Amino acid sequence: MPMGEFELVRRFFRSKALEQAGDRQMVALGIGDDAALLNVRPGYRSVISTDSMVESVHFPSDYISADLGYRALAVAASDLAAMAARPVAFTLALTLPRTDEAWLEGFSRGLACAAGDLRMSLIGGDTTRGPLNIGVTVFGEVASGAEMRRDGAHPGDLLCISGPLGDGAAGLAVVTGQDLPAGLTEADRDYLRRRFWSPQVHWEFGLELAKVASAGLDVSDGLLADAGHLAEESGVGLQIRLADLPLSSALGCWPAAQRDAWMLSGGDDYVLLFTLPRASEPQLNVWRAAGWPVTVIGRVVGGEGVWLDRGDGLETYSGAPGYQHFGGCSV
Amino acid sequence: MPMGEFELVRRFFRSKALEQAGDRQMVALGIGDDAALLNVRPGYRSVISTDSMVESVHFPSDYISADLGYRALAVAASDLAAMAARPVAFTLALTLPRTDEAWLEGFSRGLACAAGDLRMSLIGGDTTRGPLNIGVTVFGEVASGAEMRRDGAHPGDLLCISGPLGDGAAGLAVVTGQDLPAGLTEADRDYLRRRFWSPQVHWEFGLELAKVASAGLDVSDGLLADAGHLAEESGVGLQIRLADLPLSSALGCWPAAQRDAWMLSGGDDYVLLFTLPRASEPQLNVWRAAGWPVTVIGRVVGGEGVWLDRGDGLETYSGAPGYQHFGGCSV
Repeated sequence: MPMGEFELVRRFFRSKALEQAGDRQMVALGIGDDAALLNVRPGYRSVISTDSMVESVHFPSDYISADLGYRALAVAASDLAAMAARPVAFTLALTLPRTDEAWLEGFSRGLACAAGDLRMSLIGGDTTRGPLNIGVTVFGEVASGAEMRRDGAHPGDLLCISGPLGDGAAGLAVVTGQDLPAGLTEADRDYLRRRFWSPQVHWEFGLELAKVASAGLDVSDGLLADAGHLAEESGVGLQIRLADLPLSSALGCWPAAQRDAWMLSGGDDYVLLFTLPRASEPQLNVWRAAGWPVTVIGRVVGGEGVWLDRGDGLETYSGAPGYQHFGGCSV
Repeated sequence: MPMGEFELVRRFFRSKALEQAGDRQMVALGIGDDAALLNVRPGYRSVISTDSMVESVHFPSDYISADLGYRALAVAASDLAAMAARPVAFTLALTLPRTDEAWLEGFSRGLACAAGDLRMSLIGGDTTRGPLNIGVTVFGEVASGAEMRRDGAHPGDLLCISGPLGDGAAGLAVVTGQDLPAGLTEADRDYLRRRFWSPQVHWEFGLELAKVASAGLDVSDGLLADAGHLAEESGVGLQIRLADLPLSSALGCWPAAQRDAWMLSGGDDYVLLFTLPRASEPQLNVWRAAGWPVTVIGRVVGGEGVWLDRGDGLETYSGAPGYQHFGGCSV
């Protein structure tokens, strides 16, 4: 007899590792009733974002379900970091073609691993039969007014990034078995695989940023596209210097043209792109001393659009459609 | 050129009818940034529920997209009513096989209609290409401690329901073109069609209930299955009298066996099933005078499980798997 949906939920999703991964003070009522109840502290706001993942669109068909579980939550939680919010909880809307116990065991294990890393509790969800679709809605909290929005950048601010670019796209090349450069070591491949399947969410750094950054977001659609969003929402222009973009030694194994394309438009990096008032420039060294690999990659200017300096003059990306993230976008 | 995803969102989902349908004081930041920000008043809790809808599982393939838009939000919001929460906002995770403008126009129109009826603002979402899947996460608010849970029923309480049963299943029979009884008028068919595609969410009545009900939930999986959930969570038994179940005149056109089966196990009714302490019995007449069609259908007893009185003794439904709602369940 195939497992019923209630039994499925009970067996794979009702675990301490998933239900109690986050701050237990915040969850007044979790899985088991019609809806979950979250406490929100006075002076704080609830921060909410939804993502869905579809096979062959957001991840290749050849995957390990534990990897998928980790990635589903991490990618969604990145939007909390992008708001300078503390992750709290999440719901899961899981549509599955059939009840595959091995798949579910792996998926829930990977999900629990991400929940533990991010300190987020599973508080509810829905399981349905149909073509594979993974919907994750994440909840965080932020002190009212401390949120990092896209619309606060001013001309003169520095444009900065919280980690290397291009690894998400290079990681996809590794996991889909594309031709790889000869110099890429097994350690490099491991690193890139992890960067694709287990993106690190910089939410702790996001909390730091909220104190000083004038605007920010996470790089999910690719640097140029996301810089475009920030420029548009802030009503400013952004100048980016290609030579200043940080890259991993693994990415450095690819020819410059491929490497640069991935750093500029690859997507799936989940690092934070933010603007910093000049007066806060000394903060950069404080962060670096604390181990955050922050890099200044350009500056905010008047006007509009994104301008790239490849070393031989500025090219504009204003109005370009940007990278469309395998065909999805967050609203 | 096919419409880009950003353009799609802008055109069909960024409207005043969707973004400002609810209490504007509650939404600190809506669509357009990495995440939405919701205000939660001191002394209140955030109430959260997620539902997904899949073609041929939750709705027939022969549908009008406006109907689907309405139903997607109403079904999800019913879980807020079931917690005695006030609806506030929602996110939409929409996976579509292709950009079909007529489909999207209808869907967003139906969605906006439900948003207006329920006073809920669209605050974010995700659009993705893939097999049709509609994920809705709803947010409400409830005063801390005023929530209506499943676990508060006590022996001696009355078991009540907020509206007729069986119309959801009869509505599905109408919309899928099944053989209909001869006595069913065109007005009956219209009524049942509406009951399926535009279920009325009894959230205002839910707010009333929170003051006196000892436990409650919404009937989505079918009366016996949902009564089983309430009995289990409360650690009590429930006795239901078949003769007392309220039904519409439209449902009355079907033969008794079919009619009874739908009232007991049909699902998709989205009325509230709740338990009321005896001391609050006078409240029933107050509600009826205010136009709420409340019916006492049984009582809470010691022990466990659900017992049905068909007029010739009690049958138990304890331990029965219950109706599995086309193969999905909420956790």
